[in-house]
Amino acid sequence: MPHKTVIVGGGAGGLGAAGGVKAARPDAEVVVYTEYEDVAYSPCGIPYVHGGEIPDFERLFLATKDAYVEAGIDVHYETRVSAIDTRAKTVTVDGAEPVGYDTLVLATGFDYADPGVPGGDLEGLYYVKNIRAAMEWDKFLDTVKRAVVIEASPLGVEMTTSLAHRGIETHLVDPHPWPLAEMADPDIMAPVEESWRELGVHTHFNTTLKGFIGQGSVSAVDTSDGEIPCDLVVVATHKQPNARLAAAAGITIGTTGGIVVDERMATSAPGVYAVGDCTEIPHGLTGVPLQGLTGSHAYAQGKTGGTNAGGGSRNYRAVYVPWGTPAGKWVIGGASFGETTATALGIPYVLGQAQGISRARYYPGVKPVKVKLLAEPGSLRLIGAQMVGQEGIKERADFLATAVRFGLTLHDLATMENVYSPAIGALNEPIVMAANNGLDELRKAGRS
Amino acid sequence: MPHKTVIVGGGAGGLGAAGGVKAARPDAEVVVYTEYEDVAYSPCGIPYVHGGEIPDFERLFLATKDAYVEAGIDVHYETRVSAIDTRAKTVTVDGAEPVGYDTLVLATGFDYADPGVPGGDLEGLYYVKNIRAAMEWDKFLDTVKRAVVIEASPLGVEMTTSLAHRGIETHLVDPHPWPLAEMADPDIMAPVEESWRELGVHTHFNTTLKGFIGQGSVSAVDTSDGEIPCDLVVVATHKQPNARLAAAAGITIGTTGGIVVDERMATSAPGVYAVGDCTEIPHGLTGVPLQGLTGSHAYAQGKTGGTNAGGGSRNYRAVYVPWGTPAGKWVIGGASFGETTATALGIPYVLGQAQGISRARYYPGVKPVKVKLLAEPGSLRLIGAQMVGQEGIKERADFLATAVRFGLTLHDLATMENVYSPAIGALNEPIVMAANNGLDELRKAGRS
Ligand SMILES: Cc1cc2nc3c(=O)[nH]c(=O)nc-3n(C[C@H](O)[C@H](O)[C@H](O)COP(=O)(O)OP(=O)(O)OC[C@H]3O[C@@H](n4cnc5c(N)ncnc54)[C@H](O)[C@@H]3O)c2cc1C
Ligand SMILES: Cc1cc2nc3c(=O)[nH]c(=O)nc-3n(C[C@H](O)[C@H](O)[C@H](O)COP(=O)(O)OP(=O)(O)OC[C@H]3O[C@@H](n4cnc5c(N)ncnc54)[C@H](O)[C@@H]3O)c2cc1C
Repeated sequence: MPHKTVIVGGGAGGLGAAGGVKAARPDAEVVVYTEYEDVAYSPCGIPYVHGGEIPDFERLFLATKDAYVEAGIDVHYETRVSAIDTRAKTVTVDGAEPVGYDTLVLATGFDYADPGVPGGDLEGLYYVKNIRAAMEWDKFLDTVKRAVVIEASPLGVEMTTSLAHRGIETHLVDPHPWPLAEMADPDIMAPVEESWRELGVHTHFNTTLKGFIGQGSVSAVDTSDGEIPCDLVVVATHKQPNARLAAAAGITIGTTGGIVVDERMATSAPGVYAVGDCTEIPHGLTGVPLQGLTGSHAYAQGKTGGTNAGGGSRNYRAVYVPWGTPAGKWVIGGASFGETTATALGIPYVLGQAQGISRARYYPGVKPVKVKLLAEPGSLRLIGAQMVGQEGIKERADFLATAVRFGLTLHDLATMENVYSPAIGALNEPIVMAANNGLDELRKAGRS
Repeated sequence: MPHKTVIVGGGAGGLGAAGGVKAARPDAEVVVYTEYEDVAYSPCGIPYVHGGEIPDFERLFLATKDAYVEAGIDVHYETRVSAIDTRAKTVTVDGAEPVGYDTLVLATGFDYADPGVPGGDLEGLYYVKNIRAAMEWDKFLDTVKRAVVIEASPLGVEMTTSLAHRGIETHLVDPHPWPLAEMADPDIMAPVEESWRELGVHTHFNTTLKGFIGQGSVSAVDTSDGEIPCDLVVVATHKQPNARLAAAAGITIGTTGGIVVDERMATSAPGVYAVGDCTEIPHGLTGVPLQGLTGSHAYAQGKTGGTNAGGGSRNYRAVYVPWGTPAGKWVIGGASFGETTATALGIPYVLGQAQGISRARYYPGVKPVKVKLLAEPGSLRLIGAQMVGQEGIKERADFLATAVRFGLTLHDLATMENVYSPAIGALNEPIVMAANNGLDELRKAGRS
C-alpha cells in the first residue's frame, strides 16, 4: 500500500500541502476533503470582482478539477469531515466508513468571529468567503442601495472600497478610533479615511455594533451611534482559527485558539500536521503566537507541512509579517510592529519617518510614499515599518519584513544604495530618507 | 574667518557635498564652481523629455538659483576651475586671483569616452549632458528623420527608446552581441530587443564604429556593418571619470582613471575630498574598483564627502550596485553580478531563476517579472541578481543589493515572507520562486 496523506481543507493551506506531499513523495496517495464546491480559486480576488476592478469570477479559478485528478490528488468536494481519531489514524466523513491515513494535514482555515449580537440569522448578512456564494451575492449587489460593513478589518477595508467603487452608499462601523486599528497607525490610515470620504463612504468609528434589525431580511444595523438603514451587511469581523476538529480530537490548542505546531508544522498528535489559518505561529521578535495570517502564509505553511507529511523535511520559521492592501485610492502596508502595536505590547522604540516619492519629482504619475521605521532603542535594529503610498508598497513591505528578520539597523538602511531612474524611482529612496531622519532625530536628542 | 569649503562641480555630487558641509557646519562658507549655466537640475530626466514622457524641460529644475543664495551656498555659474594647488590650498579660476580653501571637494563628474574615430568634430553629434544644450537639441529633434545612437550603454538604451517614442527612425550601433552587454545578461535583454523591434528600432550589434561622415554636419555613420545615413548621432559611449584637475595636481588616480578615495571620500591630498563620477569606489564583494556609478551614488557620496569636509564624520561604504532603467516597454534591473559579469570575472556561481508575475494572475494590469539570482556555490550567499519586468523592479533591485551586502543566502530568500494582495502582488513572490528553483536544481544535482 502506498503512503496515504489525508488533508482536511481545500484552501491555500490545504492545496499547498497537497503539492508538498506530492513533491516529497510522488507516489503518495493524497486525499483532500473540502466543504466547498471548489478548490483552487482565489478568495482574495472576490472583493475586486464586487468592486468592478476584475471583470468576472471565472478568472479567479486557478486550475480545473481535472488538473488535480491528473496530479494524482483526489479531491472530495462538498464533503465534511466530522471527526478525527488520532489513535486509530482515521477521519470520519459524514455518512461513510472511517477513512485511514498515514499522515493527516489539518487545513481547516478560519471563521469570521461571531458578531454576537441579536439578528445574526437574518438574510442579507454576507460573510465573504466561498466563491459560489460570492457569485450569488454579486447579483444581489446590483439591487443594493445601502450597505453596512462591520469592522474595518483587512477584508472590511477592501469591501468598503469595493462597495463604494460599485456605487453603493457604504457605511463602515468599527469600535476603534480608526480603521485597521489593531495593525495600522492612525497617521497611515488618515489619507485612507480621506479618500473614502471622497468616494462617499460614511465611516462610524468608536461605534459598537448592537444588532441586526429586520423581518426575515436585514433592513438596518443597530449601533451605539444609532440605526443605519441598509439592504446588505458585510460581516467582516476578525478571523478566528477554525480548530474545532482538532480540539475535539484532543490536539493541543494555543492561547489564540489556533492549533499549536512546531517548525515542521507538526501538531501534538503523531503524524498530524496543521497549516494555515487554523494554526498559531510565533512572531519572530516577541515569540508571541499570532493567528489569522494571510493566504500567502497559509500556502507556504502548506508546502512545509505537506513536505513533512510526505516524508520529506522542511522547516517553517517564525514570522515577521509583511502586509499590504489597497485602501481607498491608497496602498497601505508594513512589516511587524507599528507604533500602535508596539505601544500596546509595551515594546520601546525609536522612530524614523519620511514623506518620499515613488518616481522623480517631475515624472508623470509620481506618487507620495510615506515610510515610518521603528527600531529598538540602542541597537537601532528594525522592529517594524508602516507605509502609505501607491507604488512599490508591497515590494518594500517584503523587504522590510526581511530586514526585521535579519536584524538590519537604521544605520544599515540609511546607507542603503538605491536605484534612481526618473520613471521608476526617485533620487532619494523613502526608506533611506526615513532611516536618516530617524538618526538625525537621535543625534539632535543626543542619543546616538 | 569662517571655515571655507570650495566645491568644483555642480552636479549631484557637488550639490550633495554643499548640503553635507552646511549640515555639518552651518556657518561654513561654501563656494561651488560649475562650467554650466545651472545647478540643481536633473540630467536624468532629459531622455524622457526628448521621448515625450515628460512634457517640458522646466520641471527638471529642482530649485531656483535664489534657493542656493538663501541656503548660503555661493554658486559661480559658467566658471571653470583650471588648476588646484593642494599645498597652497587654492584653486585657480580662469582670469581671476587664486581662491583659498580650508577644504576642497572635487565633484567634476564624468565625460563620455571619446569615440576615437574620424569626423568627431562634425555638427549633429549630440553628447547628452547639459540641460541648456538639451533644450536646443530638442528643437532640432523636430527636424530629425533618422538618428544613430552609438553604444547600448545605460544612456544609449534610454535614448534609443526615447527617439523611437518620438517617431524618429532610430539605429543603435554597439560592438557587443547584445545591449548593455557589460552589465546585463542576454536573456534579460532579449525582451527589450523585441520591444525595440516593435517600436521600429534598427539594432546593429557586433558592429564597430568606424567614423562620422558629413560636410560640416553629420550625414551618415560609418560602421563595420556599412554606412547608416542619418541627421543626428547620439554619442552614448561609456562614462569616464573627469579627473584631469586632480591628476594635474598630483592627486592619486586609480586603475580605472578615477580619483582614489578612502571611506571618508578623502583623496591623497590633505583636506581634499572627491565625490561622484570622478572617483572610483570598491565593489563590496570583490574590492575591484568601479567607476561610472549613478547620480544616486554621486549624491550619497557628496553628502559623505561634504560632511567630512565640513568637519563632521560620515563614512561611505563599498557598493553592491543596484541598477534599473526602463528599456523599450520593459524595466530591467539588478544588483551586483549577472551571469555575464560573473563569468567575465571568473566568479563561480549557482543560479536560481523564475518567471513570476507582479500581481495576481487574474488582476488587470498583471505583468511578467523574471528574476535570476546568482549565489556563491557552497555558502549560497547571494552575489547578484538580474530582472526584467514592468512593475516593482527598482524596489526589488534595492532589496537584492542589500541582500548581497548582508550576505543573505538562497535559503534566506526561499523562506522569505511576502505580501499577497491581488492588485499589488502575487501569491508567489518572484524572488522567492527563483530562490526555491535554485535550491531545487541543487537538490536534483545532489549538491545541497
Ligand atoms: C474574501 C477574502 C479575501 C482574502 N484576501 C487575501 C489577500 O488579499 N491576501 C492574502 O494573503 N490572503 C487573503 N485571503 C486569505 C485568507 O485571509 C486566509 O489567510 C486564507 O484563506 C487561509 O487559507 P487556509 O487554507 O488556511 O484556510 P481557508 O481558506 O479558510 O480554507 C479552509 C478550508 O477548509 C475546509 N474545511 C473546513 N472545515 C472542514 C471540514 N470539517 N471538513 C472539510 N473541509 C473543511 C473549507 O471547505 C476550506 O476549503 C482572503 C480570504 C478571503 C475569504
Ligand atoms: C542624460 C543623463 C541621464 C542620466 N540618468 C541617470 C539616471 O537615470 N539615474 C542616475 O542615477 N543617474 C543618472 N545620470 C547621472 C550620471 O550618470 C552621473 O552619475 C551623475 O551626473 C554624476 O554626478 P556628478 O556630480 O559626479 O557629475 P556630473 O553630473 O558629471 O557633474 C560634473 C560637474 O562638474 C562641473 N565641472 C567639471 N569640470 C569642471 C571644472 N574644471 N570647473 C568647474 N566645473 C567643472 C560640471 O560643470 C558639472 O557641474 C544621468 C546623467 C545624464 C547626463
